[in-house]
Amino acid sequence: MGTPSIMLATHPGAARIAGDRDALVSCIEACMECAQACTACADACLAEDAVSDLVTCIATNLDCATLCRATSQILSRQEGTSAQVVKATIHACLAACTECAEHCEEHGEAMEHCRACAKVCRRCEETCRELLAAIG
Amino acid sequence: MGTPSIMLATHPGAARIAGDRDALVSCIEACMECAQACTACADACLAEDAVSDLVTCIATNLDCATLCRATSQILSRQEGTSAQVVKATIHACLAACTECAEHCEEHGEAMEHCRACAKVCRRCEETCRELLAAIG
Amino acid sequence: MGTPSIMLATHPGAARIAGDRDALVSCIEACMECAQACTACADACLAEDAVSDLVTCIATNLDCATLCRATSQILSRQEGTSAQVVKATIHACLAACTECAEHCEEHGEAMEHCRACAKVCRRCEETCRELLAAIG
Amino acid sequence: MGTPSIMLATHPGAARIAGDRDALVSCIEACMECAQACTACADACLAEDAVSDLVTCIATNLDCATLCRATSQILSRQEGTSAQVVKATIHACLAACTECAEHCEEHGEAMEHCRACAKVCRRCEETCRELLAAIG
Repeated sequence: MGTPSIMLATHPGAARIAGDRDALVSCIEACMECAQACTACADACLAEDAVSDLVTCIATNLDCATLCRATSQILSRQEGTSAQVVKATIHACLAACTECAEHCEEHGEAMEHCRACAKVCRRCEETCRELLAAIG
Repeated sequence: MGTPSIMLATHPGAARIAGDRDALVSCIEACMECAQACTACADACLAEDAVSDLVTCIATNLDCATLCRATSQILSRQEGTSAQVVKATIHACLAACTECAEHCEEHGEAMEHCRACAKVCRRCEETCRELLAAIG
Repeated sequence: MGTPSIMLATHPGAARIAGDRDALVSCIEACMECAQACTACADACLAEDAVSDLVTCIATNLDCATLCRATSQILSRQEGTSAQVVKATIHACLAACTECAEHCEEHGEAMEHCRACAKVCRRCEETCRELLAAIG
Repeated sequence: MGTPSIMLATHPGAARIAGDRDALVSCIEACMECAQACTACADACLAEDAVSDLVTCIATNLDCATLCRATSQILSRQEGTSAQVVKATIHACLAACTECAEHCEEHGEAMEHCRACAKVCRRCEETCRELLAAIG
């Protein structure tokens, strides 16, 4: 069991968003990973000779990192705002992941860090979608 | 002119969300203020003797701080994800501000920091609503 | 009185770092402003034709934004870790502001957003130094 | 290989802090995990009947989460501020982890989430120390 799973299992309250606990844990982990990948990918793009072609990719990475970071925090709390706020947050995160994946995929053939980042974004997008479905 | 206004005015590109620049600047400033107020209010609640009555207020403050912080970052960038993602982010932020204001208002008579925080949340809620209206 | 000042005045506990309350409030406000300015300056640099000359400036802006954001949160709490941790955080923030100001000043003649950002970084650097002096 | 390791391996530049790449990756991963654990532990403490005994633990968790989150971002970038700023950041993070581990260990017998969080803090503390040693 990873840390997010252990922390959820030892929480004295219930998960604030009813539904599959595995979907919640997977989404937390994917958001953490995606925030890191996007932060690192923006930085790697800055170090490329072709940086001027990567401007939108960098900026999209930064937005996606911001939203994944926020979402991983919100999902790590079981107390707090209503499921409505949590869902709105996941929706914003999902949309950012989709756009970031698309931009990174465009440069994925030439740049390995974009290829790796796109994969992580797609995985995060998927876990967001699954979590929304699990919440209902 | 405050810093967010100067930074927007000196940006070489256009604002990614069309509409009123004043509404954008007001929302950035309100999000910054609200993130700070909620962080400080959660901390002040922790220092109250009646902390066990303030648990939901604290947790809601933390969620609201997280979302206001993320939103102020997203709005401070003119490059990056589409207006769609920006709008989804503002919607999540607005919803968190409404809920946080409601919780803080409940304790506003007894606790000055909750009263002050509620005001800032209501102001942020309003600027989010105005920005969404300006974007269309 | 601004929001950070009101939140500090209405906190039921004492400030965890003894010393001048004005120095604390000024540093919180400067960190908030600097995080915003650096986020916006990185984004404005990305929109410049000469982006490939601004790579270090952008990356430094991003580090400085991260540290100013973290520092404004830590300083907004009066409970929590010891003054030792708070001081170490201010030291890291101060060092980032100095470096970011230097990079932005290099491009300040050609780019107004770098000039504006450098000023905010210098102000933040100064408030960090004053707060460290006030703490002793 | 985990995501931080892949992102580092595919970066076109060198790591800005010379030394062991494994130590860098381990520290990024531990900071990500610790930020999540501390966020979740603060939330779990809020849900405990004995919340009034856990106030310092909660506030320390929040500071530690803030610093681990910032440190994981700084370490995920190879461009940006100097090694001096990176080291100052790791020092602040290390100090927060030590204090947070101590507080969580106090309640570790009674509360499983504090026990789990303390372990993650100790691991993060260790990776910070090892990274500082590797940098020299």
